[in-house]
Amino acid sequence: MVLGSGNVATHLARALDKDHHVVQVYSRDKTHAALLSEKLTGCEATDKLDRIYTDADIYIISVSDDAIRYIVASMPEVKGMVVHTSGSVGLEVLEGIGGSTGVFYPLQTFSKDIQVDIHNVPFFLEASDEQGMQKMESVASGLSNKIYHADSEQRLTLHIGAVFACNFLNHLLDISSEILTKKGYSLEVLAPLIEVTISKALESGAHESQTGPAVRGDINTIHKHMESLHSMEREIYHILSQSIIDRYKIQKRI
Amino acid sequence: MVLGSGNVATHLARALDKDHHVVQVYSRDKTHAALLSEKLTGCEATDKLDRIYTDADIYIISVSDDAIRYIVASMPEVKGMVVHTSGSVGLEVLEGIGGSTGVFYPLQTFSKDIQVDIHNVPFFLEASDEQGMQKMESVASGLSNKIYHADSEQRLTLHIGAVFACNFLNHLLDISSEILTKKGYSLEVLAPLIEVTISKALESGAHESQTGPAVRGDINTIHKHMESLHSMEREIYHILSQSIIDRYKIQKRI
Repeated sequence: MVLGSGNVATHLARALDKDHHVVQVYSRDKTHAALLSEKLTGCEATDKLDRIYTDADIYIISVSDDAIRYIVASMPEVKGMVVHTSGSVGLEVLEGIGGSTGVFYPLQTFSKDIQVDIHNVPFFLEASDEQGMQKMESVASGLSNKIYHADSEQRLTLHIGAVFACNFLNHLLDISSEILTKKGYSLEVLAPLIEVTISKALESGAHESQTGPAVRGDINTIHKHMESLHSMEREIYHILSQSIIDRYKIQKRI
Repeated sequence: MVLGSGNVATHLARALDKDHHVVQVYSRDKTHAALLSEKLTGCEATDKLDRIYTDADIYIISVSDDAIRYIVASMPEVKGMVVHTSGSVGLEVLEGIGGSTGVFYPLQTFSKDIQVDIHNVPFFLEASDEQGMQKMESVASGLSNKIYHADSEQRLTLHIGAVFACNFLNHLLDISSEILTKKGYSLEVLAPLIEVTISKALESGAHESQTGPAVRGDINTIHKHMESLHSMEREIYHILSQSIIDRYKIQKRI
């Protein structure tokens, strides 16, 4: 049973549908529940929490972080295991539930219109007991080749790592794109370079793959670049260059 | 004729060898010149600048930025066009040369042991005259599908853009990797997320693709993350989050 009809719920439900029977989809919006359930084999839709089936094997709560608490408080007592899919919410939020509980966290950014290869999505699992973990592992291993365990503290670490490697990384691409656009280029001209940078970092390690003026200790170029930048972009250029210089123990100051 | 035997010289010479006759490779190190020339059809090696053939069609100087000046000062008068391949050095460095001069700048990071698809490497061209530009375009179009024009100011912009989108991006992956390693994970667990982030940014635009706590104005999560970071990583988290908040005009302060 899937509770939720957002991006994560949709991708999970459709992937689960291949090997498992998703009996019911709940959403507070009946149209959303119906849209998702129609795509699944023999699946019903409901917008009434007190009408959900109580004998499903596993209940996957996949809603916004704040809404998890509300669902837990309002759902009836059920026989199956109850899990949520959030990276930032602890297992404790499910404490009111009688039986096994767990966290079933797929580390990927999902958009409804972009196809994601679920086999490559890493799943991070936590369970209240060994039996619950076995059930989650059996479900997860049908979806993905990458199954890990992670408690709340480890999920926090993963989330922080993802903020640097994805959210901040995207922001740097945004800044770069703006700088290029002003001179009539698009970020597209850097695409081959970006792709090689990512491959090298993942294959040989980011620390070993660092290139550029800062790691060369080329203060002249750093100054020349900073002269043509302003406000926030200049500060970011400064701190990231200094951070590289410090990390590689280059005895220079910008 | 190729002057130089480093990473860029090697990749260029081998790519040129398919459609053109590279008559000679010069390097101040005879062994390096010989190693490269052996891989090219009917190509000679020399470590004597005063012995280079003077009747080649084009002379490609592909050495470190500082060494360009030395080569220009020491090479004999030649009949062909003389170009260098540096993104950070102006066309002026070639002023002592009699005929057409140019800059032939491939925007890619080359390692000797990593195969690069040269057809996808963007080349940025500048020439002292129209005839020179035509000659460079004809050579470049045999190598790559991506030919652009760029004067010194535009190359500076491209370089700054590449520092953000590649050097700094790699540094963020380095930081992320370190954070994950401390808790027993490797950057590999984020690989699927990083790859989707890059695809989205290049396909839909980085500005439209921004996700994460900062763009959601989720100050609680930002504080929670900053509490578990220290020194430089904490400062970088702070400034990049603030920069995202400012850029999306979210009325919050961290």
